[in-house]
Parts: sequence; structure tokens; C-alpha cells
Amino acid sequence: MTPLARYLPILDWGSRYDRDTLTSDLVAAVIVTVMLIPQSLAYALLAGLPAQYGLYASIMPLLAYAVFGTSRTLAVGPVAVISLMTAAAAGTIAAPGTPAFIEAALALGFLSGLMLVVMGVLRLGFLANLLSHPVVSAFISASAVLIATSQLKHLLGVDAEGETMVGMVRGLAASAGHINLPTLLIGGISLGFLFWVRKGLKPLLQKAGLPPRGADLLAKAGPALAVLIAILAVVQLGLEARGVRTVGAIPSGLPPFVVPSFDPDLLAKLVVPAFLISLIGFVESVSVAQTLAAKRRQRIMPDQELTALGASNLAGAFSGGFPVTGGFARSVVNFDAGAQTPAAGAFTAVGILIATLYLTPFLAPLPKAVLAATIIVAVLSLLDLKTPRMLWAYSRADFAGWAATVLLTLAIGVEAGVISGVVMTLALYLWRASRPHAAIVGEVPGTGHYRNIARHKVITDPAILTIRIDESLTYLNARWLEDYVLKQIAERPEVRHLILMASAVNAIDSSGLESLEAIVHRLSEAGVATHLSEVKGPVMDRLAHSHFLETLSGKIFLSQHEAFTTLGASSNGKAATTPMPAAEDPWLMRGLI
Amino acid sequence: MTPLARYLPILDWGSRYDRDTLTSDLVAAVIVTVMLIPQSLAYALLAGLPAQYGLYASIMPLLAYAVFGTSRTLAVGPVAVISLMTAAAAGTIAAPGTPAFIEAALALGFLSGLMLVVMGVLRLGFLANLLSHPVVSAFISASAVLIATSQLKHLLGVDAEGETMVGMVRGLAASAGHINLPTLLIGGISLGFLFWVRKGLKPLLQKAGLPPRGADLLAKAGPALAVLIAILAVVQLGLEARGVRTVGAIPSGLPPFVVPSFDPDLLAKLVVPAFLISLIGFVESVSVAQTLAAKRRQRIMPDQELTALGASNLAGAFSGGFPVTGGFARSVVNFDAGAQTPAAGAFTAVGILIATLYLTPFLAPLPKAVLAATIIVAVLSLLDLKTPRMLWAYSRADFAGWAATVLLTLAIGVEAGVISGVVMTLALYLWRASRPHAAIVGEVPGTGHYRNIARHKVITDPAILTIRIDESLTYLNARWLEDYVLKQIAERPEVRHLILMASAVNAIDSSGLESLEAIVHRLSEAGVATHLSEVKGPVMDRLAHSHFLETLSGKIFLSQHEAFTTLGASSNGKAATTPMPAAEDPWLMRGLI
Repeated sequence: MTPLARYLPILDWGSRYDRDTLTSDLVAAVIVTVMLIPQSLAYALLAGLPAQYGLYASIMPLLAYAVFGTSRTLAVGPVAVISLMTAAAAGTIAAPGTPAFIEAALALGFLSGLMLVVMGVLRLGFLANLLSHPVVSAFISASAVLIATSQLKHLLGVDAEGETMVGMVRGLAASAGHINLPTLLIGGISLGFLFWVRKGLKPLLQKAGLPPRGADLLAKAGPALAVLIAILAVVQLGLEARGVRTVGAIPSGLPPFVVPSFDPDLLAKLVVPAFLISLIGFVESVSVAQTLAAKRRQRIMPDQELTALGASNLAGAFSGGFPVTGGFARSVVNFDAGAQTPAAGAFTAVGILIATLYLTPFLAPLPKAVLAATIIVAVLSLLDLKTPRMLWAYSRADFAGWAATVLLTLAIGVEAGVISGVVMTLALYLWRASRPHAAIVGEVPGTGHYRNIARHKVITDPAILTIRIDESLTYLNARWLEDYVLKQIAERPEVRHLILMASAVNAIDSSGLESLEAIVHRLSEAGVATHLSEVKGPVMDRLAHSHFLETLSGKIFLSQHEAFTTLGASSNGKAATTPMPAAEDPWLMRGLI
Repeated sequence: MTPLARYLPILDWGSRYDRDTLTSDLVAAVIVTVMLIPQSLAYALLAGLPAQYGLYASIMPLLAYAVFGTSRTLAVGPVAVISLMTAAAAGTIAAPGTPAFIEAALALGFLSGLMLVVMGVLRLGFLANLLSHPVVSAFISASAVLIATSQLKHLLGVDAEGETMVGMVRGLAASAGHINLPTLLIGGISLGFLFWVRKGLKPLLQKAGLPPRGADLLAKAGPALAVLIAILAVVQLGLEARGVRTVGAIPSGLPPFVVPSFDPDLLAKLVVPAFLISLIGFVESVSVAQTLAAKRRQRIMPDQELTALGASNLAGAFSGGFPVTGGFARSVVNFDAGAQTPAAGAFTAVGILIATLYLTPFLAPLPKAVLAATIIVAVLSLLDLKTPRMLWAYSRADFAGWAATVLLTLAIGVEAGVISGVVMTLALYLWRASRPHAAIVGEVPGTGHYRNIARHKVITDPAILTIRIDESLTYLNARWLEDYVLKQIAERPEVRHLILMASAVNAIDSSGLESLEAIVHRLSEAGVATHLSEVKGPVMDRLAHSHFLETLSGKIFLSQHEAFTTLGASSNGKAATTPMPAAEDPWLMRGLI
């Protein structure tokens, strides 16, 4: 692969593009387009934007991803969770649907695109590691619940505000008297139809003689079918006059060229949500892309994916699109439909463009309740109940982080949920990293092997204390190291030699080094010599770049056994040179070492 | 030690207090008091407060520490860096010396005390680990430069504002024409005298027959002597009339009982600086306490130190004191003077109380220039030039963090300096943690030992890929693990078995577990079985709490050699069962494995 093709993967796959690939990609594109039209309208609704913005977000971003993306099958576009985050962030600026709100939604896409590109160029993708699996799972599940709840008002045909669970439920309860019956009927039937399509249509189609994959793909057209039927019903039965709210006139034509807002006040307010949208979008997208790539033994390049998603969002921001990322269900359909290259995405963009140009007049009578039903059915598949069960069994601390993220997302909002999840996970990690495992060891009699005195019958010497540290020495545990070692020494006035057994120390950072020096210095003032044993090669190489070896009051021994026997032999009469078995060791019995 | 004595160490040492200890403590207290009087006045000046607040901060906090502290010799009170941070934080609320400024300074002490107590009770001391050695060293050195520069205006007798280096230098330059000559003379002479006291007085006293330790301690009275001479000079020569600025009337009497402000707006603005003051104060204080305790093979308890410092600050906040912590120079003097218990601190408090009651009328003519000289001489010893040299040699990344902290502290301010240092250090740590070391290994011929193929001549099998991961699997490297493993598999279409050699994996958190499951799942779809070898006992115990062992497509082998030979023998004909030496291995020569 040429260096340029690394940053423009289209040069790589494009140069080998042939007729067969074209056919496969075109078939996949048609299927994804049919699926994407109702989705894009629905997610615009969810994001609080007029319907056409969903279409705009499904054209230029897809073309940009086709140029820069490394996944062969990822289908980019508006997705549920990112749309919810967009609604929440833009909602702090203005009321949904207002020009200021739309401006904020586009600015979010611009900021997020910029951040993703910068992260891609500076290789900052590791920041996404801060989102642990439990936090992402909790956040997505809680968002799904929030999203489904937020759509109930469309199903009922009522006005109800509120962003948190409590707010929305309260809003729905207050408007319970204003339910529009035709809307409820349409919504209920759509919901039932869409659930049935997911579960029952595929077997039916298979019975009718379709192959399983074909039946599966055709079932994905369910939402489009629901849209079609609902439009016909509204027009034929004159339901608009009976209070059924519809999408209304959608301007047709090419996506507009817009310059996103550069208002520094606006951008400053959107920096944090844009960053979270970038990270969540990236994590979800890469996870989908990796899953699909692995099935065909292909690879994606996470750093380049940052750039590609960034380019998609920038392309969207300049053409009336709101934040987008790779969608799970859509990408699976694209994969199953046989997409071979990102060109399938470009063809999908052309499909949506055609819809934008010629189909929009027919979409005006589409009831919002049908879109709401589409969203509800889609997001319920995001609910992940396996993860909390797994966490409960595997790690209560991680489960607590999961539960807190769910509760805070539902109770306060998406930003608070993600941020507190990240902070809690990091705090727990730092807490664990700050108190690593260490053991006082002695010799398993006659073997030359050294084991934890708390678990094995071993030989010790009252004048010699050996501590094995089972972790790299970093600034996070440097203070712990000083506390721990000084405590052990303070409790054993007889000790004259401390051996730090470094067999599990993979690295020592400068704080760890200074703590080692502090220990050596303090102990030598207290009359204790500090020795090291079993220092790994790379660690030793680094230590040679410091003055540590000169300041060390003791020696560095290649093996722990050499250290123990040498020091045991040289220590003055009082320290037993003939070690006694652990069971008879008075120190052990007194629980001191 | 009784449980209560753990939280009230005074019960422990107090019960064994005797006449000899009393004598030692009293002698130390007298010496520290003489040293502390000018220091407390000077640090109040540095903090932007009237002089008496320095005395107030040296009474109740010392008594509180004597009750709660675990260090026998730590001397608590106002210190330079914390005073600078107080001035910077309160300076964002009001102009120095105004009632609103004083209120903010006291509120800082209150908040900081509260935070420290909460951190002590919740055992959150590990948060102080976020301050790495390089960041603390950089911050203290830069603060010393800032402090020394800020005192130049007092030495020159001019008015000059400015908090950053650039601001202060600009202010001094602008007022260069207004230098007060008598002030400059007093300041210059004091500075010269104090420097000479540090270097030249001790040898002189020794020549005069004093023992080294006595000479050392007497030399610490230098600042007090300078104060005395300066007061006499001002009074005798009528220097106040000639423009020499003095401390002015200091109200005498007991420290006032004040209730700190509970204004939520004010407290909200001070939360971040109060937290930084708490952390920096704690880190410095614990480091001093540990150094001194180790010399006598005593111990301090960091968590209890949090509570003790918190109690000190709360006691200060209710008695007109600003934030305090354990001071280095002062504690060393206390130690050298023979202090045996925290009672020495309580006696020092009594000494300062007596000074507050009876000495203040005599301090009014004290020139500010002398206090400024005291501060400058004191803080220059905080300059740490060894650390940057050590960092440059040992770790360029850590050096960069040091340099950035220094520059940002000087250019923007103390808060920005600390925060960016902490953030950079953490980001670097997370970056390193997110890409741990891993190696593809093969068998050293005939030994059953497995080593990195990049460094050793080893035997491999094209159908088997063995990856040794040299790190615990956590959420920080979970995504890296998936990327890395999938990349290696994608590059080797012949591989049918992946062995993850877990001999260096000390723990697997839930994100690491999910990544392992994802790898197993994805690889099995690509026709590759995943095996584990040399899983540590505790890790295996945890895995038994999950469904991982059921979902694993391969086996878990006790030893890597067993895994390699078993899989090598069972893999179909194509995969060589008779391994060839590394040098002849075509895969190795093609640089693929």
C-alpha cells in the first residue's frame, strides 16, 4: 500500500475495482437506500430537526467516508444515540426546530468532524479507551430507553417536553387527556407491524420459497413498507384533518451548501458535547467495522477511521447534515447484501440524493407516529441486558460503574451519564493502580525459589527483608511504594538488608525512580542497606541512564537466591545464617513477617 | 494502638508523655517560634493579607495538628507555595487586602480543610498520586521564581501589580523610576545578611566554639535578628518619614473567632483552587513528614495525615487563619532541635500566641522590605535544578511534562500550571497503558522455552500463532488487544490456532474479558481457534465467574509448551509438525512472523 493510499484508501480498492464488485455494491446500495430513507427522516425527528436534514446527513457524509474509510462495509449516516446527543446538546442553545437550534446541530457536526480529524492526525484514538465496555454498554442502553420514551409523545399525538426520564414521564402524564386517537391507532399498528416484520416476516418469506438471506434482507424493507402504507392511509382517509401530525412539506432539491457557524460563544458551549459525540460515535463505529471486517479476515485502521469519520462529519456540516457515524443495523444489512467496497456507500448516497430530488413531495403526508414507531423498534435492539448480568458475576465494581452510568443518564442526561461513567471508571482504575500487589517472600526450603510468606512455608532471615513487587513502578504507585516499604521496615527493627525483588517490574518511570531513591536514602539513614534482585534487562538499561546505581546503598543481584545467600552469609552473627523452617520461625509465629 | 488512638494519635503518645520529652519539646518549640514569627508575617504579606493573619494561621492550626497528626516532628503553618496559591485564588475574587479578599482567603482554608477531612475519611489520599514527582518539582520551582519576583516590588519600594512573570516584570519596569532608595538599601542589606547567615554564620559560630548542631540552630534565628535590627533602624533613623513602607500597626490580642463565608457563589469559585491547595499541601507535607519519620524509623499514616491537615485548616478558618500545611525548613529545624512529639507544635502555638498578645506593638515599624528579603531567601532553596537534569537523562517525555508545567505556571499562573501538569502526565500514562508490550513467540529449539521471534532464533509453526501479552488486560488496552490480535491474524492467512500466552497477565477486568470474547468470536467466524496458555491462578479464578470458558473456541493449556506441541501435532498435514529452525523458516525470512 502506498503511503498516500494509507490516508486515501479509495486509491487502494479503487484501482482494483471491477464489474463484479460493481454489481455487488449496487445491489447492496439499493437495499441500504430503501432502509435508510425512513431511518434518516426518523433520526432527524429524534434530533429535533426538520425531516430533510436527515436526508442531507445521508449524502455527503457517505461520499466522504467512501474516500477516506478503511472499512469495506461500514454504512455511515444518522444513528439513534448520536441523534439523541445532538438533540440534548442543541437543546441547551435553543428550542428544537428553531433556526438557532438547527445552527447549533450543524455546528456540532462541524466541531465533531474537526475534533475527529485532529485526533486522527495526532493519533489520539487512544482517548476512546477512556470509554470502557461497561460504560458504553450502560450509556447505549440508557439512551435507548430515553429515546423510546421520547417517541411516545409522537405515538400518542400529544405535546410533551422533557429530556430526563422523570421530565418526560411527567410531561406525558400531564397530556394524557389530549391523546389523538387516529394517531394512536396508526402508531400502534405501525409498532405491531414492525415488531412482526422483525420476528414473523422472515419465516413467512422463507415458507414462500425465498432463501434465508434474501428473506432476511427483504424483511429490512419493513419500515419502508410501513411508511408507504401509512402515507396512503393518511391521504385516502384524510387523517391530517383528524389531527394526525405528519412530516409536512419537505423541500426537494440538492443538499444546500452551508457554512457552519464560527460564533466562538456557540462553539465554546458545544465543545464538550461535540467531544463526547465524537468519542461515542468513534467507539461504536469502530466496533461495528471491526466485527464485520473480522468475518472476512479484513482489517480496519482505527486511526484512519478517525479521519474518515471526521471527514464525513465535516462534509455533512457544509451540506446541512447533523452528526453522523457508522450505524450497526445498517452496516450489517450492507454486509449481508454483499457490499464489497466503500463504493456501496457512495451508491447509497446517490440513492438518497435521488430520493431527495424526486421523492420528497410524496413524503409530506407521512405521519410522525410511524417514524416514532420505527425509532422505538430500532432502539429496543440496542438494549443490552447481557452486560449487566456478566458484570454482576465478574466484577461488582464494574457493575457499580454500569449502574451509576445508567441511572445518571436517565436521571440527569446523556452528557452527565457519559462523563460520570468515564470519571468513575478512571478513578477506580487509578485507585487500583495506586495500590498494586506486593508480597514479602522467603525461600521454599532447598529450592532457591522464593514465594509469598503468607501462602507458603518458607525460610526467612530476621536481618533480611525481601519484598517482591508485582507491578511496574509508576507515578501512580510511587507514594504507595514508599509507604509500604517504610512501614515494613518500621515494623522490623532487626532488619539490616532490604531486597526489592523486581522480577515482575516491567518499567520504572521517573517518579518510581525518585521513590526508589528516597527509599534508599531514608533507609540508609536508618542503617538499612537496600538491594535489588532480578531486575529485567530493559529496566536495567534505563536505570543506567540515571544516578540511581551510584546512590544505591546495597547491590544489584542477578538472582534473588544469590542476594539472599550472599547477604545472609555476610550479615553479622546475630542474623541467623542457618535459616530455620518457617513453622519454627519465631517471627512468622508472631505474625510479624 | 486502640482504634480511637488511630484517629486521635495524641491518645497514643500523650499517654506516655514524660518530663524528658517535655524538656526536648519545649526547647524545640522556642527555636521554632523564633523562626516562625518573621515567617508567618512574611507569608501573610505574600498571601496578600494583613500581617496578623500570619500569626493567627500559626496558632489554632498547630494545636489541631498536635491532636490529630501522626508525624512526631512536622511543623505546620503558613508556607510559601500555599500562600502564593492563596493570593492567586483570592485575587480572582477581590483586590489584595480588601475585606472581600480576606473573606475569600479564609473561605479557601475552610474549603480546603473540609476537602482534606473528607478525603481522609473516605481514604481518597490516592488522588494525590495524580501529582507526579516531575510535576510537583516543576510547580514548586516555578512558584519559587514567581514568589521571588513578586517580592521585588517590596525590595524596591514601588507599587507594581501582575501575577504572571511577564505581568510582574512589566509592572516593575514601569515603576523603575519610583524606586525608594532607603527601602532598597534596607532590602539589599537584609538580603545580603540573610544569605550570609545561611552560608557564613554557622562556620563563624562553630569557630566561636559552638557545637555544629547548636551553630546550625542559632543560624536559623538570622531572620529574627534581621527583623530586630531593621525595626531599630527604622525607629532610630525615622525611615518611615523617608518612604520606607512598614508592616504598620498590628492589632494585638487573641485570634478572633470567625465564621467562614458560606456564600455558595464564593465557595463555587474557590472549589478548584481549594482542591489544588489541598493536594499540593498534602503531598508536600507527607513528603516532609515521611523523610523525617524514616530517619528515626518511625511511621506516619498518610490517610490520617489528610484528616490532621484538614483539621488544621478548619481550625485556622474559624480563627482568622489562611490555608496552612507542613513546612519543610521549619520541620527540619523542629526535628534538629530535638522535638519528640507533636506537643512541640502545641508549645510553638503558645509561643506565637504570646507574641500575638505582647509583641505586636513592637512589630509595627518592621519594613516590608525585610520580610520580602526573608521570603526571597527562603524560596530560593525551593528551586530544584537536579530534577530536570535527572529527567532529561532518564525520560524525555517526563522532562517535557516538567518543562511544560514550569512554563505554564510562569506564563499563566499556578492553577493552570498544576492542572496542565496533571493532565499531561495522566494523558502520557494512559497513552502508554493503552499500548502495552506484546511479542510473537516461538520455541527456543529443544528447550520448551518460548521467546520473542524478533530477538531469538526460535521454532514456529505456520498454522499456530502464539502471542505473549506483557501486561494486565484492562479497559485501557482492551481495544488495542483487539486491533493487535486481529491485525496479526489478518496478515497470516495460514493460521488456524491462536495461542494467547498469559504468563504476564496479572489481572483481566471486565472490558478486557469482553475484548477476549470478541476476539474468540470473531476469529472462530474466520476459522481460527483461540487458546490460552499459562493463565495465572487468580486470573483463572476470576474467569471461572464468567461464561468465557464456555465460549472459548479452543482450550486452556497449563504450559505454553504443551499448547504448542499439542496443537502442532493435531493440526492438519500442511502445518509443519516438524518445526524448522528459525533461520530457515520461510515465514521469518519474509518478515511475516
